[in-house]
Amino acid sequence: MRSSVTAAPLTHTSPMGPIRSDAGAHLPLGLEAVTITGGSWAPYLERNARTTIPHAQSWMEKLGWVGNFSAVVDGTIAAVRQGREFSDSDVYKLMEAMAWEIGRTGDPDMERRFQELTEVITSAQESDGYLNTRFGHDGQEPRYSDFEWGHELYCAGHMFQTAVARLRTTGPDAFTAAAVRVADHLCEVFGEGGRDAVGGHPEVETALVELGRTLEEPRYTALATRFLELRGRGLLGEIEFGQQYFQDDEPVYEAAVLRGHSVRALYLAAGAIDAAVEAGDAAKVEAIRAQFDRTLARRTYITGGMGSRHMDESFGEDYELPPDVAYCETCAGVAAIQVAHRLLLWTGDEAYADVIERCLFNVVTASVSAEGDAFFYVNPLHQRTEGSTPEADRPTPRASSSQRAPWFTVSCCPTNIARTLASLPAYVATVGEEELVIHQFVTGTVRATVADRRVELRVATDYPADGEVEVQVVAGAGTWTLGLRVPSWCEGATAQVDGEPVEVDAGAGRLSITRSWTAGEVVTLSLPMPARFSRPDPRIDAVRGQVAVERGPLVHCLESVDLGDDVEDAVLDAAAGLEVVDGQVLATISRRSVVERPWPYVATTAPVLPTGGSRQVRLQPYREWGNRGAGTMRVFLPTD
Amino acid sequence: MRSSVTAAPLTHTSPMGPIRSDAGAHLPLGLEAVTITGGSWAPYLERNARTTIPHAQSWMEKLGWVGNFSAVVDGTIAAVRQGREFSDSDVYKLMEAMAWEIGRTGDPDMERRFQELTEVITSAQESDGYLNTRFGHDGQEPRYSDFEWGHELYCAGHMFQTAVARLRTTGPDAFTAAAVRVADHLCEVFGEGGRDAVGGHPEVETALVELGRTLEEPRYTALATRFLELRGRGLLGEIEFGQQYFQDDEPVYEAAVLRGHSVRALYLAAGAIDAAVEAGDAAKVEAIRAQFDRTLARRTYITGGMGSRHMDESFGEDYELPPDVAYCETCAGVAAIQVAHRLLLWTGDEAYADVIERCLFNVVTASVSAEGDAFFYVNPLHQRTEGSTPEADRPTPRASSSQRAPWFTVSCCPTNIARTLASLPAYVATVGEEELVIHQFVTGTVRATVADRRVELRVATDYPADGEVEVQVVAGAGTWTLGLRVPSWCEGATAQVDGEPVEVDAGAGRLSITRSWTAGEVVTLSLPMPARFSRPDPRIDAVRGQVAVERGPLVHCLESVDLGDDVEDAVLDAAAGLEVVDGQVLATISRRSVVERPWPYVATTAPVLPTGGSRQVRLQPYREWGNRGAGTMRVFLPTD
Repeated sequence: MRSSVTAAPLTHTSPMGPIRSDAGAHLPLGLEAVTITGGSWAPYLERNARTTIPHAQSWMEKLGWVGNFSAVVDGTIAAVRQGREFSDSDVYKLMEAMAWEIGRTGDPDMERRFQELTEVITSAQESDGYLNTRFGHDGQEPRYSDFEWGHELYCAGHMFQTAVARLRTTGPDAFTAAAVRVADHLCEVFGEGGRDAVGGHPEVETALVELGRTLEEPRYTALATRFLELRGRGLLGEIEFGQQYFQDDEPVYEAAVLRGHSVRALYLAAGAIDAAVEAGDAAKVEAIRAQFDRTLARRTYITGGMGSRHMDESFGEDYELPPDVAYCETCAGVAAIQVAHRLLLWTGDEAYADVIERCLFNVVTASVSAEGDAFFYVNPLHQRTEGSTPEADRPTPRASSSQRAPWFTVSCCPTNIARTLASLPAYVATVGEEELVIHQFVTGTVRATVADRRVELRVATDYPADGEVEVQVVAGAGTWTLGLRVPSWCEGATAQVDGEPVEVDAGAGRLSITRSWTAGEVVTLSLPMPARFSRPDPRIDAVRGQVAVERGPLVHCLESVDLGDDVEDAVLDAAAGLEVVDGQVLATISRRSVVERPWPYVATTAPVLPTGGSRQVRLQPYREWGNRGAGTMRVFLPTD
Repeated sequence: MRSSVTAAPLTHTSPMGPIRSDAGAHLPLGLEAVTITGGSWAPYLERNARTTIPHAQSWMEKLGWVGNFSAVVDGTIAAVRQGREFSDSDVYKLMEAMAWEIGRTGDPDMERRFQELTEVITSAQESDGYLNTRFGHDGQEPRYSDFEWGHELYCAGHMFQTAVARLRTTGPDAFTAAAVRVADHLCEVFGEGGRDAVGGHPEVETALVELGRTLEEPRYTALATRFLELRGRGLLGEIEFGQQYFQDDEPVYEAAVLRGHSVRALYLAAGAIDAAVEAGDAAKVEAIRAQFDRTLARRTYITGGMGSRHMDESFGEDYELPPDVAYCETCAGVAAIQVAHRLLLWTGDEAYADVIERCLFNVVTASVSAEGDAFFYVNPLHQRTEGSTPEADRPTPRASSSQRAPWFTVSCCPTNIARTLASLPAYVATVGEEELVIHQFVTGTVRATVADRRVELRVATDYPADGEVEVQVVAGAGTWTLGLRVPSWCEGATAQVDGEPVEVDAGAGRLSITRSWTAGEVVTLSLPMPARFSRPDPRIDAVRGQVAVERGPLVHCLESVDLGDDVEDAVLDAAAGLEVVDGQVLATISRRSVVERPWPYVATTAPVLPTGGSRQVRLQPYREWGNRGAGTMRVFLPTD
């Protein structure tokens, strides 16, 4: 399959990636343009293809989530249905991951599995296009009888995103045809003049816009716009968590900040940007951008994690960012990447590429185990206890432990990771005005048409092990601009073209080199990567008096396995600084001598607590924590 | 009624109070022995009787929770039942409050209302004794088909506690007869040789022991013991929150600390103490005492509030005590008082009277509005936003706001407050060996038999406005010991007998004066009550770098209404100290100048933030916060 796709002309309007947007400052490049051939990312992508995707499929088959579709055909679904009300969506997300992976590598075995799943799923479609295993069949509640929790539109959205992946990689097939029939059915039921409704879990909005873009079908975009306009007007019923939970509290473009259930809020924001971009309504895009910016400034963890509260999986209030009881759902990290990607394309502002990087390095890849077959659903920044060991043969609830679980009863996260990693090349580079920009540092190739000239770059880097990035212009002689992101965490970046220094404007977020290029020339970007302390805004009360340690894009943490003791009483000697030895970050840690008291609030103005002797301890990249057995961990370290 | 009760001889084995325990170091005194006639507590008790109890009854009638009992008689219950599965228990708790209030004051109108409710409730009892509106009737699920969430045993427990209150105040009646039939029914179904089961929400255990004590019926205590022995053995099914949620994870007396759902854990601990006391098993009492002590040292807020997590209303891990997302359910404060009371009686250790005081002053009375008709369900120590205004005519969910709500869909808290305040005199004093001890400072009288001598004391105090307590020996000539608690927060307490200084042993927790008393002698206890800073244990990460302010038993807080600004950027100048002027606590507060940044984690080692000019601001007793409209609030203040 791949060969036929890559043989097609490279155009900016049809990237093999999740977004096609040609109204912003930058055009996206997809899998047809960017390949990852080595470096630190290749093993992640390989593990995703070889382990995570088959792992997810085997769990969904074992738990009967795939079988639900066959049970619709058998007429037994009401009696035998397995999984939560949104389990169909996980099958679609698995297939989306497969579709990108097929597009990326042409894996024939995965193609066969995709087609088998297609057969099972499409057989369950009703004659009028409706397709959902949870509603509308004998013995089940009627279709569209539970917009608050039913997830029918949400499941349809995930089906559309898979169809987009398929259409942009291998082209139309039975799956995409079924998706089109579902979309047409939705237009009929919910389109202009139809039923006024919105789904409790946003997702269909962004998916409809993208399906519309792919098929050049304005009805789909119109339906997405209609759903967005109807939201925030109280169409959804009351629930304990309040209307804010599903963003039905305020009109979409009028809110000041993201709020309520974090994944819902972020998927909605993605759709709201998409529809506004399609409408050419810059004010609306900027409204969502302002919401996201404020969310980044006040409601985001240092890892990029979003969503403070376990109770309703929601953003908390501004600066309510407790590290230990943080929720930081993996899916919110995926969704934040989607929003940031859209804003990067719209604005060309590298700040959003920084967000993508932060979430990729500290949420998405942090969620997956070293082996690729276990996951964190929540990603706290402080693990106080080891927690229980997740069972190997049964899905676990979402509650956190210091050990990743093979599967969850609500298992949205593993497939969200899988589809993100399988489409990772689509987040690497964009094309601006006469400019080709590399936002994420990967080892591989980037090919694009820039200033009417076909450009090919070869990129080599060990990033994030070090900050040296080498970009060779393989093809593309002539004058155009090469852009390379300079991450906001970086101070003192330098660059050279064939050994000649080039000035780097600190603070611009990007090194842009405009010149007449000759094939073979090599640009070297050097990003100094010392370990550094990051001090939280004083309004983040929960980590007052503590600092985090970062190196490059990687947030680090202290694990009990390295300390040889529970992390609870660890105190950082910040004055001793940090060292990087053989790529490992070393901090100086002492142990607080604890005074045990029957009551922990003491009426003295200045208790002085002696600390034990200090020593250097290795800090672990946060994304690798919990891979060495049960233990405790903390990102923010007290400096007492 | 009162006259006939008080005419009865005073004995230690039948106090008019929730506990009769004669195996511990101290014997409880009840409403027959202690009266509250003035001082700061009288208005609370008066408001409870005049406003809170009628308010609770009117909501339960309006919402149909009382009507459920009639619907059982009508046979329509399955179709028309209102409220949550445990709504019966709230009717019982209301009646328990009424029963104590009738015992305390003899209010004939309340007696009439109690009898009316009795008629409605007892009519719904089945011929075999079963009485619950949620199960077992036509169209409902069968009895005892949902031990995890059904709350049948829990509701029965609350009925028994009301029966105990009734038996100890006005004597046997139709209500207590119905309760006995329920208890006999439970013995038949779940007693030795019967079904092995435990209820998902502990409560029946402590209630059965007390009913057994009151009626001298060993079968009830035996059933409680059986429920306690069966717990922690996995009889309850799996739920998302884990077996810990309902303390079915470990045998009751083997756990190291209270854990899981906080109210469940505390009610269970109360029952576990009661059964162990009845069995004379000191090791078991000490096991629960150790659990509670560790909970106080590591899992309790400075207010006495317990339960950190909203998600499952549970204790978090040790030192997981975030102030903003604190749950601190009002009912947990009530339940902690029950446990502490039992341990006070067992040990005679004033540390537990300190706990009772802390919870009374900073949880129970903090929950109720100044008017007595609105309540906090959760009691956070930091309110970041004003939150929404609770609706006046509909019950609200439990989520917190800066304004109290008139009623909740889950409305366990208001009636728990009501029954605690109505029985408050029972927490004031106890009798030890030849010793009469006053633990809680109230204005009123205490009468008891001490060293075979009838003693009567008259107590006068403005506590907690000041720390002067005057105790006059009205009757009781001869040698015996008068004990007065010296709170652990107090430094420099002094005392006099008729103007002659008496030595106070700091650290003993109690001033004990043994002498030959003469009627008319006056003991004066002076508890210095400056405002003081309380610094949290450094392991409580969430409030690092912050201090709280207390005065006497009252935790204080900063409210936006006093600051004239949101409390978010307030910084305490601890060096400036605290002042008390006209009983009001004044702190010196400055305003942090905030540097707005797009990303709140900055890679500098020492950002210096200027602060605005400082000024004295009044701090509010925490229990009175939120009584002046919507606002923000914090107990712990950063000292940056």
